[in-house]
Amino acid sequence: MEIPSKYLSKAVEEIASLPGIGKKSALRIALHLLRQPAKDTEQLSKSLVELVTIAKSCIICHNVSDEEICPICADSRRNKAQICVVEDIRDVMAIESTGTYSGVYHVLGGLISPMEGISPADLNISTLIKKLEESTVSEVIFALSPTLEGDTTNFYLFKKLQSFGVFVSTLSRGIAVGSELHYADELTLGRSLQHRQPFSLQQK
Amino acid sequence: MEIPSKYLSKAVEEIASLPGIGKKSALRIALHLLRQPAKDTEQLSKSLVELVTIAKSCIICHNVSDEEICPICADSRRNKAQICVVEDIRDVMAIESTGTYSGVYHVLGGLISPMEGISPADLNISTLIKKLEESTVSEVIFALSPTLEGDTTNFYLFKKLQSFGVFVSTLSRGIAVGSELHYADELTLGRSLQHRQPFSLQQK
Repeated sequence: MEIPSKYLSKAVEEIASLPGIGKKSALRIALHLLRQPAKDTEQLSKSLVELVTIAKSCIICHNVSDEEICPICADSRRNKAQICVVEDIRDVMAIESTGTYSGVYHVLGGLISPMEGISPADLNISTLIKKLEESTVSEVIFALSPTLEGDTTNFYLFKKLQSFGVFVSTLSRGIAVGSELHYADELTLGRSLQHRQPFSLQQK
Repeated sequence: MEIPSKYLSKAVEEIASLPGIGKKSALRIALHLLRQPAKDTEQLSKSLVELVTIAKSCIICHNVSDEEICPICADSRRNKAQICVVEDIRDVMAIESTGTYSGVYHVLGGLISPMEGISPADLNISTLIKKLEESTVSEVIFALSPTLEGDTTNFYLFKKLQSFGVFVSTLSRGIAVGSELHYADELTLGRSLQHRQPFSLQQK
């Protein structure tokens, strides 16, 4: 399948390099761009360049931010002694949208993955250790995905944090709220039974 | 789910406006851009702008081209009296990759769709009629998708072409090569039976 224009071919190649977009989708997107006014594509391009050149990483928690310090770290009402460790900013957004957390975050920027060549040195781990050395932290919450990479990262971080005597917690695993019991996988159901909690009438 | 940076938010909105990309995929792509060197994103943006500002539409067949006339229309070995009508350039590429067609194309740039508000006036139909008026065309092949929109467009074009007395053909419908009979839908199987062809040992 040969593309009849070198500019189209180049654009398709660039679009297909983005995560989750194959060559066929890239061609569909490129044809869509050709059909819409050139002004719209120029606007899209401008937004992408502005994103990577202007948006910053918060110097405290590595969350994406327009300022040096992100709105969460800058908020005096947030409990700075409680740090929730997450993989990327999508997790910050997911937890923020629950409206149940008043501590701060620490964005690792990935998970340890020998398969993908991601080592602890590639992640924002040293700045987390520094926080523990320099300020009073009462609790570190591991909120990483329950995958092999997430568990590896939890284990590595736990070893690193042990010497500080800080309380380390992790998100509870169990049956999702509103889901049917018999659809849960055995591992989740097993853990959920092991970690069963005292019943309460006020339970949410 | 609130995005903590207005540049990120703007970029996600722009990316999500592309076909086939939802808000979650857009965020994933934006975070990927933030992680890679800014130079790569600038290159991507440049390709997109070059595509929409430099790549042209062939003045004869409306295929995408870097020149005024696309390589197919410019090729003296192609039979200019045989015109294959397609929806967009992906179809040109698909037919070209079969290596079995030596005529030329006419790219409509869409299909008639009252649902999406696409009328005949939005498509490259007048230039097709002009070709028939100004030159000798022996055959027009309808190679549009077998959908409601495709059939509507076929019908509209057929009415328009009737007065020219040109031979109009359409792609054969039937069982796909290599597919199992019992997986074919009833409509396809039914048509395939109606339009059965004389058996030949040389049949490909």
